Amino acid sequence: MAWARWGCCPWLVFLCALGAWGHPKAANLRGEDVRNCSISPPYLPDTAVNTTAQLTALRQQMHSQKLSAYIIPETDAHMSEYIGKRDKRRAWITGFTGSAGTAVVSVGKAGLWTDSRYWTQAERQMDCNWELHKEVDITSIVTWLLAEVPAGGRVGFDPFLFSIGSWKSYYTALKSSNIQLVSITDNLVDLAWGSEKPLFPSQPIYALKEAFTGSTWEEKVSDIRSQMQKHRKGPTAVLLSALDETAWLFNLRGSDIPYNPFFYSYTLLTDSSIRLFVNKSCLDSETLKYLNSSCSGSMCVQIEDYSQVRGSVQTYASGDVKIWIGTSYTTYGLYEVIPLEKLVEDTYSPVMVTKAVKNSKEQALLRASHVRDAVAVIRYLVWLEKNVPKGTVDEFSGAELLDKFRGEEDFSSGPSFETISASGLNAALAHYSPTKEQHRKLSSDEMYLLDSGGQYWDGTTDITRTVHWGTPSAFQKEAYTRVLIGNIDLSRLVFPASTSGRMMEIFARRALWDVGLNYGHGTGHGIGNFLCVHEWPVGFQSGNIPMAKGMFTSIEPGYYQDGEFGIRIEDVAVVVEAKTKYPGSYLTFEVVSLVPYDRNLIDISLLSPEHLQYLNHYYQTIREKVGPELQQRQLQEEFQWLQRHTEPLSARALRTTSLAPLLVVSSLIILGWSV
Amino acid sequence: MAWARWGCCPWLVFLCALGAWGHPKAANLRGEDVRNCSISPPYLPDTAVNTTAQLTALRQQMHSQKLSAYIIPETDAHMSEYIGKRDKRRAWITGFTGSAGTAVVSVGKAGLWTDSRYWTQAERQMDCNWELHKEVDITSIVTWLLAEVPAGGRVGFDPFLFSIGSWKSYYTALKSSNIQLVSITDNLVDLAWGSEKPLFPSQPIYALKEAFTGSTWEEKVSDIRSQMQKHRKGPTAVLLSALDETAWLFNLRGSDIPYNPFFYSYTLLTDSSIRLFVNKSCLDSETLKYLNSSCSGSMCVQIEDYSQVRGSVQTYASGDVKIWIGTSYTTYGLYEVIPLEKLVEDTYSPVMVTKAVKNSKEQALLRASHVRDAVAVIRYLVWLEKNVPKGTVDEFSGAELLDKFRGEEDFSSGPSFETISASGLNAALAHYSPTKEQHRKLSSDEMYLLDSGGQYWDGTTDITRTVHWGTPSAFQKEAYTRVLIGNIDLSRLVFPASTSGRMMEIFARRALWDVGLNYGHGTGHGIGNFLCVHEWPVGFQSGNIPMAKGMFTSIEPGYYQDGEFGIRIEDVAVVVEAKTKYPGSYLTFEVVSLVPYDRNLIDISLLSPEHLQYLNHYYQTIREKVGPELQQRQLQEEFQWLQRHTEPLSARALRTTSLAPLLVVSSLIILGWSV
Repeated sequence: MAWARWGCCPWLVFLCALGAWGHPKAANLRGEDVRNCSISPPYLPDTAVNTTAQLTALRQQMHSQKLSAYIIPETDAHMSEYIGKRDKRRAWITGFTGSAGTAVVSVGKAGLWTDSRYWTQAERQMDCNWELHKEVDITSIVTWLLAEVPAGGRVGFDPFLFSIGSWKSYYTALKSSNIQLVSITDNLVDLAWGSEKPLFPSQPIYALKEAFTGSTWEEKVSDIRSQMQKHRKGPTAVLLSALDETAWLFNLRGSDIPYNPFFYSYTLLTDSSIRLFVNKSCLDSETLKYLNSSCSGSMCVQIEDYSQVRGSVQTYASGDVKIWIGTSYTTYGLYEVIPLEKLVEDTYSPVMVTKAVKNSKEQALLRASHVRDAVAVIRYLVWLEKNVPKGTVDEFSGAELLDKFRGEEDFSSGPSFETISASGLNAALAHYSPTKEQHRKLSSDEMYLLDSGGQYWDGTTDITRTVHWGTPSAFQKEAYTRVLIGNIDLSRLVFPASTSGRMMEIFARRALWDVGLNYGHGTGHGIGNFLCVHEWPVGFQSGNIPMAKGMFTSIEPGYYQDGEFGIRIEDVAVVVEAKTKYPGSYLTFEVVSLVPYDRNLIDISLLSPEHLQYLNHYYQTIREKVGPELQQRQLQEEFQWLQRHTEPLSARALRTTSLAPLLVVSSLIILGWSV
Repeated sequence: MAWARWGCCPWLVFLCALGAWGHPKAANLRGEDVRNCSISPPYLPDTAVNTTAQLTALRQQMHSQKLSAYIIPETDAHMSEYIGKRDKRRAWITGFTGSAGTAVVSVGKAGLWTDSRYWTQAERQMDCNWELHKEVDITSIVTWLLAEVPAGGRVGFDPFLFSIGSWKSYYTALKSSNIQLVSITDNLVDLAWGSEKPLFPSQPIYALKEAFTGSTWEEKVSDIRSQMQKHRKGPTAVLLSALDETAWLFNLRGSDIPYNPFFYSYTLLTDSSIRLFVNKSCLDSETLKYLNSSCSGSMCVQIEDYSQVRGSVQTYASGDVKIWIGTSYTTYGLYEVIPLEKLVEDTYSPVMVTKAVKNSKEQALLRASHVRDAVAVIRYLVWLEKNVPKGTVDEFSGAELLDKFRGEEDFSSGPSFETISASGLNAALAHYSPTKEQHRKLSSDEMYLLDSGGQYWDGTTDITRTVHWGTPSAFQKEAYTRVLIGNIDLSRLVFPASTSGRMMEIFARRALWDVGLNYGHGTGHGIGNFLCVHEWPVGFQSGNIPMAKGMFTSIEPGYYQDGEFGIRIEDVAVVVEAKTKYPGSYLTFEVVSLVPYDRNLIDISLLSPEHLQYLNHYYQTIREKVGPELQQRQLQEEFQWLQRHTEPLSARALRTTSLAPLLVVSSLIILGWSV
């Protein structure tokens, strides 16, 4: 996983809120050189940004709209996990660059609301124009607004930056007050930002080669239309707002968003037309031809400008129509122009749900990308094993080298998220990534956690391995092994079709719970074919849809010892049919990540025979799938390393260590009751 | 468990709806002698009830109220699990006596909506005045109403028989139609029923002796008032509607309801007064004195008549007050008289949530009742072991004998639900209980499932044991052992404080899932101290509150082979602190039911050393707690039986059977990959 936005998504919040389920601490920037606004003159560190000019410009815009306050969330018009530079409005107005947080500016005050991971960072980056509110829920923001905004006052917001859910929360909280919530489609921060705001991207949008797609876009359009026809509420159109929905539907990719191969877009797919809203200049003649854009039949794609979407949806909604939306990814900016009686609402659009199940070609593509990704990760681990003892490797340069190795793989298209390359105590910090300026040296005396992934034309990858090149403590080995047992117990679970991930993720925790340990984050997320690394709605959290054959999910238990070390073991797995002794519709997982776990950290005595059998079978799979790839590319050193690290785990150790207590138990059972 | 209403509670419906999670079939009455309304004249079996007179009388009442239809649910004014005779309105009007189902009568038609367990029974008991609708959701009823009721028509209902939730469902479904939903407090079925309706019960209400209570009623009142003061919404009163809430608060019991020692009542506990609404004639002078009913201070109980509750709440709600309710057990009859802005709504009242956690005295009381209950069940099992081979025992006479044995225990107050005494294929039927007329003979060739419980002044019990006196098949042993493993795996789980039962119940299923088996009901429910046998909100379903130390719950996985046999193994367990290797706030279960499992059905080769250790420890506990009780009462035969059935499970069998595959696995691991 990446900690960024995934770490603070709604599905995870309730987990993190459970204090008992200890979770990684906030990633404090090194040093405590923070602002002090309580002295005169205030103390501001070098890292603080003077935001007086920005605030003045915004308040002028607010004044012209007769607003008493203005709300600035950190999101884009597609509820994207990663947002482009031009959408970093909250960072521009506050100076604070953390990925989560909401700013609110009134006539006389300015406040930032963010979670504990970012408090120190905010105190270092913000000047004294800003209050820091160490809370995140909307109730807290509304309480502040009720105190700041005079009776009859107007509070403005950009409806394209509000999910339907957050709009409903603000609306409900303010409806009985004397404050008016005002939707303003011209973003006031953009107006204040003016010519300095980054331009709308103009990178080309391109079609994936057929070799990298599971179905043609025409087949996908027909399938979604067929779902519209079968729907009991009779929708006449589907409106797609999430960027990966449009990218998936048309097999198109772009590069407007970091880590995700997406382009700014919407789609209005009706029973008789297909309207694609994009920056028209990004489409070349070949792509236009690919989309049949010169005709106007029901299988021709009409290209409309990105900025026209609201008007176009509004016009369409004036007819005798019903528009099917997924409420999770549609913003209030489109929701408010569709009359309620013309809406067909589901949590996720049919594209989101269809995309979640990979067909056999998509499965093969994703599996293939994981083989090549394993080669890159193994090359890096081999290199680390040789170079860490020399004391010349640090978290940042290591991550750069890994990017280079991934970049050398076929079909590579960059990392799928910012690499978490964390040594020693840094691995216990949530949201930690090293920078060129701030990083820690890797050492044989410390554990090292590497959470990274790649984008390839055939698939997106995400894998975490934790390693130790020296002598780990008994506690580190125990914790690592219990995390590994959790990973195995969930991976080998056999469950009835349609079981929700939420119900089964406890298997990833039990071995830790047994001794009083736990982790405070979710246990996994879906993943796409050259799409999102965190692809909803698949996963193990309460908002996820039930597991079905062909879904891909990460499985990633962890353990974090504050101030000392962090462990996470993450694989991507595909849901496959299980062969059960008695007939029934049962499923299980098959792991497609193919990098061995660190033998140096496994305490074999904690593993059951079933765990060992599973591990050795997995290692055999790695040998069969990755071995030939390494040999073919004459990576002999890596091949030897792979052979060593996938040696069957020793039954001798099992007999002398693991079986020993078992036989003691048996003997005690023979002798009497004292067990 | 009892299957009755628990089997169709909202929390379970979604489980039963999952087809893949196969569940017990409906309990068809023997024979298929059902009505046939499609021939002329219609065929009616002897069991059908002529309801023409009832319908005529009801339609007269409807006419006087200008109603086009009237809705008759099967519930009482307290959302009770078991209802008294005078509340069986739906049975009186339809002839159908099943415990679940809703009747709706229009001017020209009459319909019954019930679930699959009852379809055959309904076809046997109803005459051709009634349509049978094989659905249960309100949407289906509303669709029927929309077709039957003319535009502008009025649909009546008794607000005291509608939960807030069901009222909201009807209201939402009908609000955009031209049909009016009309709340009528005078129940029209009661008016039609007239003098034949059973009288309001007049059994005495009595105070529990102090030896059987965990706290005095004054302490409980103070505690609830203290919770009111701490609540951020500042409630000035708590309104209690569920019968066990009032019974628990005042340590009072009665006998108005089958299987539950309750009396019809409400309580309005304000910051300065206590109002108890009951049938005043049921309180004798001693009880009135116990309640300080002759004074009027804040610790004096003012007795008001049961029928006055609505008016009294309405009057109280006209002041500057806020009334705290649990929405799950409050009916629309009280909800509608409280202005919305004066309501403080939680799913469960503070009494419900406080009652869920037993204090140390209550825990000791509940544990003691389980020791005596074990004596009764063991006496019965010993008797069966001797008498079943003679061929003289049947399901019904057996259940009667068990009632007799329970009745001989100290503090006995009858069964806690209708005993499920089911032999062979009958045990695979949901909702099966034998009758004097219809029952099956017990046999050494069949499995026998016994699910029963007792009410004692110190505690309520519920236990299920499944036995076989002959030679079970290998499949029966495997299924039984996997159910047992599920029971053990959940019972021995260590989990962080505040984990929800819903998240952990999968452990009760895994051993079954592994081979493609499952069960279609919930995994457990809370239980009270001489209160409800199914005491919400504790348990393993989605509506249950998180587990906390001192809660009691049943743990009851099962397996049902349609047409052949049924298995359930149910224990009651208390949530206790777990001692973990590393410090933390962790909990686990301790089983308080004390009857051995059937050794004849256990396949030891399927058990891990940990399972055997757990089982033998449990058996040792049974010996220590029940053995002395049997000896003291000179039940020597039972004592010998107990010793035999709690012999430590053989480590020899473990070594030769269970360890064998393990060592084979180990050997194969040594030899290579083929495992």
